[in-house]
Amino acid sequence: MKVSIIGATGYGGLELIRYLVNHPHVEIISIHSQTETQAVDQQYPHLKGILSMKLTAVDPEEIMNQSDLVFLASPSGISKKLALPFIENDFPVIDLSGDFRLKEAGAYEKWYGTDAQHFSSIEKFDYGLAEFRENLNSKFIANPGCYATASELSLAPLLQNQLAELDSIVIDGKSGLSGAGKGMSASSHFSHANENMSVYKMNKHQHIPEIVQQFQHWAPELKGIQFTTSLIPVTRGILVTAYVKLKDVLSCVQLVNLYKSCYMEKPFIRIQEEGCFPCIKQVAGTNFCDIGLAVNKEMKMATIVTVIDNLGKGAAGQAIQNMNLFAGFSETDGLMQVPIYP
Amino acid sequence: MKVSIIGATGYGGLELIRYLVNHPHVEIISIHSQTETQAVDQQYPHLKGILSMKLTAVDPEEIMNQSDLVFLASPSGISKKLALPFIENDFPVIDLSGDFRLKEAGAYEKWYGTDAQHFSSIEKFDYGLAEFRENLNSKFIANPGCYATASELSLAPLLQNQLAELDSIVIDGKSGLSGAGKGMSASSHFSHANENMSVYKMNKHQHIPEIVQQFQHWAPELKGIQFTTSLIPVTRGILVTAYVKLKDVLSCVQLVNLYKSCYMEKPFIRIQEEGCFPCIKQVAGTNFCDIGLAVNKEMKMATIVTVIDNLGKGAAGQAIQNMNLFAGFSETDGLMQVPIYP
Amino acid sequence: MKVSIIGATGYGGLELIRYLVNHPHVEIISIHSQTETQAVDQQYPHLKGILSMKLTAVDPEEIMNQSDLVFLASPSGISKKLALPFIENDFPVIDLSGDFRLKEAGAYEKWYGTDAQHFSSIEKFDYGLAEFRENLNSKFIANPGCYATASELSLAPLLQNQLAELDSIVIDGKSGLSGAGKGMSASSHFSHANENMSVYKMNKHQHIPEIVQQFQHWAPELKGIQFTTSLIPVTRGILVTAYVKLKDVLSCVQLVNLYKSCYMEKPFIRIQEEGCFPCIKQVAGTNFCDIGLAVNKEMKMATIVTVIDNLGKGAAGQAIQNMNLFAGFSETDGLMQVPIYP
Amino acid sequence: MKVSIIGATGYGGLELIRYLVNHPHVEIISIHSQTETQAVDQQYPHLKGILSMKLTAVDPEEIMNQSDLVFLASPSGISKKLALPFIENDFPVIDLSGDFRLKEAGAYEKWYGTDAQHFSSIEKFDYGLAEFRENLNSKFIANPGCYATASELSLAPLLQNQLAELDSIVIDGKSGLSGAGKGMSASSHFSHANENMSVYKMNKHQHIPEIVQQFQHWAPELKGIQFTTSLIPVTRGILVTAYVKLKDVLSCVQLVNLYKSCYMEKPFIRIQEEGCFPCIKQVAGTNFCDIGLAVNKEMKMATIVTVIDNLGKGAAGQAIQNMNLFAGFSETDGLMQVPIYP
Repeated sequence: MKVSIIGATGYGGLELIRYLVNHPHVEIISIHSQTETQAVDQQYPHLKGILSMKLTAVDPEEIMNQSDLVFLASPSGISKKLALPFIENDFPVIDLSGDFRLKEAGAYEKWYGTDAQHFSSIEKFDYGLAEFRENLNSKFIANPGCYATASELSLAPLLQNQLAELDSIVIDGKSGLSGAGKGMSASSHFSHANENMSVYKMNKHQHIPEIVQQFQHWAPELKGIQFTTSLIPVTRGILVTAYVKLKDVLSCVQLVNLYKSCYMEKPFIRIQEEGCFPCIKQVAGTNFCDIGLAVNKEMKMATIVTVIDNLGKGAAGQAIQNMNLFAGFSETDGLMQVPIYP
Repeated sequence: MKVSIIGATGYGGLELIRYLVNHPHVEIISIHSQTETQAVDQQYPHLKGILSMKLTAVDPEEIMNQSDLVFLASPSGISKKLALPFIENDFPVIDLSGDFRLKEAGAYEKWYGTDAQHFSSIEKFDYGLAEFRENLNSKFIANPGCYATASELSLAPLLQNQLAELDSIVIDGKSGLSGAGKGMSASSHFSHANENMSVYKMNKHQHIPEIVQQFQHWAPELKGIQFTTSLIPVTRGILVTAYVKLKDVLSCVQLVNLYKSCYMEKPFIRIQEEGCFPCIKQVAGTNFCDIGLAVNKEMKMATIVTVIDNLGKGAAGQAIQNMNLFAGFSETDGLMQVPIYP
Repeated sequence: MKVSIIGATGYGGLELIRYLVNHPHVEIISIHSQTETQAVDQQYPHLKGILSMKLTAVDPEEIMNQSDLVFLASPSGISKKLALPFIENDFPVIDLSGDFRLKEAGAYEKWYGTDAQHFSSIEKFDYGLAEFRENLNSKFIANPGCYATASELSLAPLLQNQLAELDSIVIDGKSGLSGAGKGMSASSHFSHANENMSVYKMNKHQHIPEIVQQFQHWAPELKGIQFTTSLIPVTRGILVTAYVKLKDVLSCVQLVNLYKSCYMEKPFIRIQEEGCFPCIKQVAGTNFCDIGLAVNKEMKMATIVTVIDNLGKGAAGQAIQNMNLFAGFSETDGLMQVPIYP
Repeated sequence: MKVSIIGATGYGGLELIRYLVNHPHVEIISIHSQTETQAVDQQYPHLKGILSMKLTAVDPEEIMNQSDLVFLASPSGISKKLALPFIENDFPVIDLSGDFRLKEAGAYEKWYGTDAQHFSSIEKFDYGLAEFRENLNSKFIANPGCYATASELSLAPLLQNQLAELDSIVIDGKSGLSGAGKGMSASSHFSHANENMSVYKMNKHQHIPEIVQQFQHWAPELKGIQFTTSLIPVTRGILVTAYVKLKDVLSCVQLVNLYKSCYMEKPFIRIQEEGCFPCIKQVAGTNFCDIGLAVNKEMKMATIVTVIDNLGKGAAGQAIQNMNLFAGFSETDGLMQVPIYP
């Protein structure tokens, strides 16, 4: 399979390259940047000896002539424009941005603060939560956001089985700095972020509507969630702690078994035994999503602790998983990296 | 005022020294360690030129002869033994451990996993949440735990004013590594802790009964809380995010005003304006406690974000604040350090 | 003493504030910024309750009317312009930038890459290496650079006593990220800087001519040095390792004694015992400079390991030390902070 | 090829597993620990779904029956004992410890502080600096130390070509915390190591004799080196800055070309262009060794900046490279990981 990557010099694009150069069935045909034209290993010396392809401007015609699929690793707001020629020509697209995720009219404008002239295209896209995809043949995939992936995988078993009190969901998300991309800001300056933790976009994060949309897919009566996002001083990794009141109290063992059963055939979801909670480092550099569980009987509350690498399962890893599903490859092809520990 | 410090080479003890050497009314008379006998600046070269006093074994007689008050910065389980001669002689003690905080019979054994032969002494101790002390003359002060301090200051205004749904409290706490002291463990090894975040003692942390006890003091019908503790890769700092359903929805401005009014005369509590949330670094190295607030109207939920330095307001800083209150000094004496930023 | 701070919102300016608000003889009269006009504690919430003064534009007239001295914490290239009215009026200035340090014609242009129209002013400035100041009455002080301070204090005893082979000096400097200020760049992005170390400005750092100038003051025949700068993932701190061949081999004890004797009356210089080397954290947040020493007899080489806080002794701390010397205060007034450990 | 790993739960052992599970020609037959007997993914959850093999005690007979080669990832002092049965049976061993590296009588005792009863075995071992191996058929390989690998690759081209002043070599090494293994110590506690940098084992590090031995292999008249080791707050990575006076001054371009030519056929050595210096992160998680070069003409001094991942090229990566060479596989088999950036 031949692929092109647009937005190859962002963190998502670099991570696609990292996975794809060792993928058994994929050849990277071209890499594109809006701003850079040098060889990618000149700007990113870690790629020396691995990929020295030149970055070129986006030429949709040429991409469609030479490749079988294009990854859009461009930011939200840019992808919606870059995707158009591919959509018009029914050419396979996997978009890592937030531009094609929100199906409800008005939602994109509200949460992304920009126009939705591309709204008619949004409905052509399949939301790519890989473990719960329904139509694997879709040519247009909106890859989920990093917080959204962790949050949705956290609660899927409870919501699909109608076990949760729907007005009680609290999700406390923590992310490493790479989640916001390589753009510079006061909050991503090392001297500010190091030895620090801060809360941001409280109840305003653009992943909220995406999560609610998916939750409502499983539990239509759900109205909303409490969602908090914060920055922790790590480069990679998301840890989401989700709290939910249970309709009926389960034991922790029952909860663990429910999750194990729900994710039995999902190679990237690893359910921890009772009393064990995952840490970020145990998924670093991979497409794994590890989940630990607890029950507070007094409060009738379940706590779900979920970790992913925001650039892996939260972005490029899942995008490749979606590509594997689309292309009929094994779901794990090119993705069985061993986490970097320590 | 002349003071002695027992457990002077732990992190809490070192932080007492850091504050006290510049306190206008205090002289450190002696510092004690169970294991060390050298000059403290030999083991801890940061103290060179500041304090070169020798560490000596604990001699209660001598301490009581020479000092006016003793700080116990010894670990839980040790303080309860070391405190006895001072209690018997009605000599002022401020204990930073968890040994004298839990008033309910059986609670200490259950949460600390060791005997409570000192139970009759516990009732002599005043719980030292400095902003809400009732009896400032108490000679025996149980200084609150770090998570407990942040949690209690987070919810005091709502609980004191009967505004919270009592079965809905979720506290998601994050702490730096110094919170667990200088003892070595696999989880405090740099190679494990760095670029990592992990959850521990889920619903089992020993600060839970202390928090519940204080919450019940304000709202006797409260049954329990959901309390999660996690480690973030910083040395100092706690960030607590507390979630609570409101009986009646308030606007965020109303909530901010409630907190401002509650803490109006408390110099160390700084309430952030609407839309602003504190970060750990803005209190680093100090006794400040900064609180930010949000309301999610759809969920009828308030979110309270609170930061402290776990060794400052969460330990030594508050201990000195309690000493100031006891001695009749200004509450802020020796404590108006400027946070280390960046 | 009444002072004004220009460039108060940079890291150097914030650190001046941190020291000065607790200085026994100083009052901050005004703080100035080229870009900000709000209250300083709105932009920097760590200052809430400590300093809520408004930032104002620079008005030299008003500063000279109200204050006794002005600190320029503005960047190199800006200070040279801002300083002019004060110089013309013989008003005391302590400049933290590199604009007034290089006495040799052509040096400023070469190393700072910009014009030296202010060259006639440079000679009015005294180089403020506080431990070796000769003219304490100078009204114009060029505060040394951070690397320069550490490097010069490292080698002063050997150079002053003609013990070094002058063609053999290698200085390997490592700095935390705050050394480059709060300006944003790809290299200061957390995701790049964390878990990383990089070398930069090899043999090109603008502190080189400043160091050579001072070394030549002590050893006129010196031609040059090898000077390497690198970034380590800490916010604050410089560790300089200096290597120099000795004309005659000394024992390590002799070397330690030489340094102790040279720095005997210097309260901020702490010489470590034989076999002990300082770490960055033992000076964090202070004006201390700690030095450890070794001799490699086989190589006839001395190694000097020196640590400072780049924002303390490397910038604001030394600036206040220079102010104390100028004003006739005790050298340590306002500067005896205890290092933040751990 | 079938392999066994002894010491599989140390950092070196875990990294061997990380590389070997995806090696195209290798099967891990057994993993061994002196202390653990559970499944490896229970202690190390990052391995869940990847390797769930049980750890067993070392049984040399069984290993020799089932495997073709054994990796000793045990600590120095332990390997020398564990290796004996394999040596006696002429069974291939790759030892990652320091036990079989020092050929000179007395050197092991002096630098490792323990007996050398195994001295007669040492001479059977080939020193495994993979780029410069002479006898690829050797069954016994002493894998080089991490600092030693970086130092030797830094200076090989200059020493092999007699371009260096031999009494002038200064090596300033910086290492992440994983270099000292997972053993707990005060210096590896997060609260001490974070936001810190410290110098240790000045002129006493056990890699010194190993480096000198290899340097003397290339330049027999060399007497000694100056070698400094320090800890930086990263988990993985070594950055070595080597300084050496040149007999005749070269331009930087000439130096770069010399290194390029020396390493032309070495796939893991990546020479940076003039003016470019490598950072640790560009080799993270891999077997690459990146080298940048500078010349200070005034000082007649070359500076060589070299980065490796101490657990990759500095340990497990090079061990597998040595295995590839021994087994006749391609040198890069299983080792072309893409560095984790950011």
